[in-house]
Amino acid sequence: MIIELAKNYGFCFGVKRAIKKAEQIKDAATIGPLIHNNEEILRLQKDFNVKTLEDINALSSEKKAIIRTHGITKQDLEKLRQTDIEIFDATCPFVTKPQQICERMSNEGYDVVIFGDENHPEVKGVKSYVSTRAYVVLDKKELENIKLPNKIAVVSQTTKKPEHFMEIVNFLMLKVKEVRVFNTICDATFKNQDAIKELSEKSDIVIVVGGKNSANTKQLFLIAKTHCKDSYLIETEAELKEEWFLDKKYCGISAGASTPDWIVKKVIAKIESFAD
Amino acid sequence: MIIELAKNYGFCFGVKRAIKKAEQIKDAATIGPLIHNNEEILRLQKDFNVKTLEDINALSSEKKAIIRTHGITKQDLEKLRQTDIEIFDATCPFVTKPQQICERMSNEGYDVVIFGDENHPEVKGVKSYVSTRAYVVLDKKELENIKLPNKIAVVSQTTKKPEHFMEIVNFLMLKVKEVRVFNTICDATFKNQDAIKELSEKSDIVIVVGGKNSANTKQLFLIAKTHCKDSYLIETEAELKEEWFLDKKYCGISAGASTPDWIVKKVIAKIESFAD
Repeated sequence: MIIELAKNYGFCFGVKRAIKKAEQIKDAATIGPLIHNNEEILRLQKDFNVKTLEDINALSSEKKAIIRTHGITKQDLEKLRQTDIEIFDATCPFVTKPQQICERMSNEGYDVVIFGDENHPEVKGVKSYVSTRAYVVLDKKELENIKLPNKIAVVSQTTKKPEHFMEIVNFLMLKVKEVRVFNTICDATFKNQDAIKELSEKSDIVIVVGGKNSANTKQLFLIAKTHCKDSYLIETEAELKEEWFLDKKYCGISAGASTPDWIVKKVIAKIESFAD
Repeated sequence: MIIELAKNYGFCFGVKRAIKKAEQIKDAATIGPLIHNNEEILRLQKDFNVKTLEDINALSSEKKAIIRTHGITKQDLEKLRQTDIEIFDATCPFVTKPQQICERMSNEGYDVVIFGDENHPEVKGVKSYVSTRAYVVLDKKELENIKLPNKIAVVSQTTKKPEHFMEIVNFLMLKVKEVRVFNTICDATFKNQDAIKELSEKSDIVIVVGGKNSANTKQLFLIAKTHCKDSYLIETEAELKEEWFLDKKYCGISAGASTPDWIVKKVIAKIESFAD
């Protein structure tokens, strides 16, 4: 069986940066998981004493707080600043961007549409910078019954698909005189998505490695599944099942933007062991 | 044969307003045709001594100048203001809007994409208000080889189709970080278009009355033709041919936004005379 890695996969710039920071800072606490990958979070805790707190209220005797890649809310950041805790910002710059845009747009009097999942920490953080009205939507239908103002700004969760973002924009264009569109979708996501599409078209089995709560990993899995029905989403090599690979000739592998390479390597080693 | 007028047709708000102004002002000159309708222009000349000049250089002994519905360039307006001629502005407010937007966007440092026909007087006028870079395009392909800046504003010629405008916006969204979309397409155009679509679906002949150099009339004709193959575009009743109506049972009629009702009435009368 041929095993091939997608041309682009795994850690994005923001995640690499956050992990490096956490490793350097050490003995710190993150508010919520630093990245969406349980294995990596455990490694950081074990090797660098970086622990994960549920939320800002769980902070007690910590000296150093690391802000997760997805960012935190403006309100939480303000609370944090009122403590004596040293703050290290590992918010991905591609997430800081929509936060800044939202703040600026509100200051300029624009209501803001955020295309994304309202329960995602990134979106919660971004939304918290809107001081005018914020509408978090996943589908244009959610905008249909809203009385929209004459001008509106629109941003996207970084991991969303551009085509879906366009649908929101196209809907708004017909309803609102001025739509200020900020394409805040991240390039890394595109690249991993393009690569998994290409790879899954020629594969008869695809393994996507990544956190099951990670939006971008789920997206990769969805694309893989569209082009190769025998696609599987796993968090670690322990989930691999030998029978999946019976009679398979071409195994494509990709990994979410928060998946470290050492996990991918373990997955490949285990798949190779099946072939023995 | 049943003859039915489209639910919405003919003169739009801007044209009605311009004609009323011209009739009140009298003894004046317009720079370029006031509206895109030769018959109406001749009537204004005959009944109200409102003549049509080719361009601003043709002004000589005139005391009063009327600015056409499509507007004129900023440069021509400045030249005009330096003369002693009294200026009456009949620019449609829906055209003044994109002019103002272009001026404001240039002042804020945005380059501007204008979706429209670069030879159309409206577009020439709107473009003249851009002091940064202006790109006039009819198709997204025209933008493919342009090195676009990080932020751009986009407006549309008032008579364009929203779906085509969307294509331009969608293209820009993928290339440019911030796209400031101003939907400057006019409602009146939509309404006439929706009405001709509905009517032509149930007609076996459609007559569209309007200037052959009018963008919105051509659009109506195109829609009619898509839904009813026996569709004709005429400027006056003189162009009607009796044989078109042989064996026809349902005749739909519409008229461009610059077509006066008295022309439509003459057209209907002539069609009715065929049935006698």
